[in-house]
Amino acid sequence: MKMNPPLLGFYFGVSLQELGRRLRIGEFTSVELVRKSLEACELINPLVNAFTFVAADMAYEAASMADRELAEGIDRGPLHGIPVAVKDNIFTAQIPTTMGSAHYKGYVPDHDAKCVERLKSAGAVILGKTTTHEFAFGPTGDCAIQGPTLNPWDTSRMAGGSSCGSAVAVACGIVPIAIGTDTGGSVRIPAALTGVIGFKPSIGRISTEGVFPLSETLDHVGILANSAEDIALVLREISPEAKPLDSDICVVPEKFKLGWVSPENFNQTDPLVLDSVFQSAVALSGGNISIVSDISQLAGKFRQAFGLIQKSEAFEIHSERVLYHPELYQEEVLERLLAAQSVKGWEYVQAMHIRQELQQSILNIFKEFELLVMPTVPIRAPKLYQRSLDVGGSNVHVRDALLSLTSPWNLLGLPAISIPCGLVDGLPTGLQLVAAPGKDEFLIAVAAKLVTR
Amino acid sequence: MKMNPPLLGFYFGVSLQELGRRLRIGEFTSVELVRKSLEACELINPLVNAFTFVAADMAYEAASMADRELAEGIDRGPLHGIPVAVKDNIFTAQIPTTMGSAHYKGYVPDHDAKCVERLKSAGAVILGKTTTHEFAFGPTGDCAIQGPTLNPWDTSRMAGGSSCGSAVAVACGIVPIAIGTDTGGSVRIPAALTGVIGFKPSIGRISTEGVFPLSETLDHVGILANSAEDIALVLREISPEAKPLDSDICVVPEKFKLGWVSPENFNQTDPLVLDSVFQSAVALSGGNISIVSDISQLAGKFRQAFGLIQKSEAFEIHSERVLYHPELYQEEVLERLLAAQSVKGWEYVQAMHIRQELQQSILNIFKEFELLVMPTVPIRAPKLYQRSLDVGGSNVHVRDALLSLTSPWNLLGLPAISIPCGLVDGLPTGLQLVAAPGKDEFLIAVAAKLVTR
Repeated sequence: MKMNPPLLGFYFGVSLQELGRRLRIGEFTSVELVRKSLEACELINPLVNAFTFVAADMAYEAASMADRELAEGIDRGPLHGIPVAVKDNIFTAQIPTTMGSAHYKGYVPDHDAKCVERLKSAGAVILGKTTTHEFAFGPTGDCAIQGPTLNPWDTSRMAGGSSCGSAVAVACGIVPIAIGTDTGGSVRIPAALTGVIGFKPSIGRISTEGVFPLSETLDHVGILANSAEDIALVLREISPEAKPLDSDICVVPEKFKLGWVSPENFNQTDPLVLDSVFQSAVALSGGNISIVSDISQLAGKFRQAFGLIQKSEAFEIHSERVLYHPELYQEEVLERLLAAQSVKGWEYVQAMHIRQELQQSILNIFKEFELLVMPTVPIRAPKLYQRSLDVGGSNVHVRDALLSLTSPWNLLGLPAISIPCGLVDGLPTGLQLVAAPGKDEFLIAVAAKLVTR
Repeated sequence: MKMNPPLLGFYFGVSLQELGRRLRIGEFTSVELVRKSLEACELINPLVNAFTFVAADMAYEAASMADRELAEGIDRGPLHGIPVAVKDNIFTAQIPTTMGSAHYKGYVPDHDAKCVERLKSAGAVILGKTTTHEFAFGPTGDCAIQGPTLNPWDTSRMAGGSSCGSAVAVACGIVPIAIGTDTGGSVRIPAALTGVIGFKPSIGRISTEGVFPLSETLDHVGILANSAEDIALVLREISPEAKPLDSDICVVPEKFKLGWVSPENFNQTDPLVLDSVFQSAVALSGGNISIVSDISQLAGKFRQAFGLIQKSEAFEIHSERVLYHPELYQEEVLERLLAAQSVKGWEYVQAMHIRQELQQSILNIFKEFELLVMPTVPIRAPKLYQRSLDVGGSNVHVRDALLSLTSPWNLLGLPAISIPCGLVDGLPTGLQLVAAPGKDEFLIAVAAKLVTR
């Protein structure tokens, strides 16, 4: 299932394992890897707008250090000397962090987010910061002080968001891996629309400390990469929960049962996307697949609870900014925040109860199925700034459509991964797999099996 | 510090230890203990309205069983054969449970609340159900379908609430111990106003399963008794956390430092109450007492966060009843629920954050002080239905005043106990001690020391 976006840097389709091997036999140095990233960035970024800041000097310095260490026999593991891009709502010491907003124009944190700290300890080289939908509050990736991020497969289209820059940086091969955040699908949606792998772990698995919050109940840090194996390596490095029995946990049984979640109850679905993803799911399962009707019937509850929680928590974070400096927001984000203000306290409490009930229900479903499978996004990448769309004769709101199949797993805190699932009319589609709480490694292992088929 | 309310049953001032000793040497049987309770109830209850239902037949049956067991050498411990009263918002199998509301007129649960289950396993005999302010939503105890509960020290005055009946049942010696609930002070307030001991444990220490919820973040089950030792015995029986090293935990050091919380920032305070409680606190500390100014400065935050959380959670529970059957509520409770509806979701989220900050702050304070001390209630028992009051020339809202010094410890989930602190103009006052999270046994042990002085 190989895809070729038109704009290709050195890292397109290259695995961490391969890079590490070649780095250690001296085929290239970390400094040279950084140079390759910077060259690709210089050529490609003006066409896609994936980076908000390129930290060239600091990256070269870190890469030199990585090279010295390797020469001295200090080896920090699979991320040692590897260029990584970090979404611009994740704090990076001495590197500008804008949240995509005029509110934070010129802001330079004095400390790293926990996940960045861990990346650095693992020897990774922070290449720069990637675009985010303003304050990560939107799945279209075309609304930020730095302007829209463009989809490399068709630059008249959106890349999806809010981790638009991280997805595009990997899709174009500027970096082999990137870090994003995912509150309703913000890693998986742009991964699906740009043809890379996007992973959101179980809630709490990767620390959100030092990430600008959007909605604390729903916020996750996620990973974008070329392969599921790379996701596994990065997860191991940046998650505090070391899994000593990794190899055991990752064993994929010969037979396992997939539960197909019909997307239609969640949103109108592009028939071509539906067919492509369903065929892949059937193939992955070896025929051992059933429809999970229980979940689709709960679609309304998922949507309602997610919306009430996100709105209440997001407005709480922004209340003073909205009051004193509304003019600094992107217009659409301000509108959404103002609408979020009106949710009632009792509705929020009720939504949290519904969340608990759904978490209970899903545990029962996972007694029957090892994994749930569905499209990541029910549509293909819309045009930039497009907000409504005809899907099968129905008018669909773009934002709702993009979030419809990913946000349920933020609400429940389940691990979920989007993997490329072929092109439809020249645009990537994504297949999403969802596992039971804590089954992150198993999920990634199954994804690896599918991608290498 | 002995007090004599005018209406006295057999159990007035009698300890569980004493009852247990006399029961086991055959001075009386459990059946006779039940009879003493029923006789006292028949005489006294018409004057104070403490019971909503007396389960005479079931009590006799349980007492007979307890007597048979003792005769056969089966001894369930300090509650074996002891009559207990249970607040009417706590579910009791086959015994009517009304929540003090027309909404639940005639309702008979088919299962026991977890705490009742534990009482029964410990051999206690459920004598009946005690009055509650409707749905436990009010600290005055004069607003329920069964009418007001009267203060035995002056029946023109309120007993305080919402566990009015449980406090009065113990105060009058109808039962030696009773169970209540405490969301903002509902065990400690009536304990203070009727001259008994009222204890609210650390959050989660006693299960609230099977208790009709008022506000899940703030709800606690509490205990009312004649002595701190009795509180300790009951806590051990109904708390799932067995404390094997009880004796160690309960050792009260010769010297410990008390922190005086000035009540004035929380509410206008009756000077006579203030003086009485402060003198007792100084005596208890042996002079080792300082003023904790940090807490009083936070009074506004405490009040605001408590209010927003309680309102949001309470309305969530009642939203459908308010919509479809508003006419079944007591007028004042309906008014409060309707006002609670308007809190915003983001305000609730903010209040939960403030709660977390306050929980952090208090941990620092407990590094310096072993216990905090203050009045339980800053005023004496107001007249029935009185809603405003002159205190030192200021007009004070009775409900706010009653809750002002107890609700902060529900917000933080800290163990707190109210102990009788002498009469002012013939009405009881209460001294409140508050301990660090989980220090329930230490708190009770210090209270025991004070009471036996």
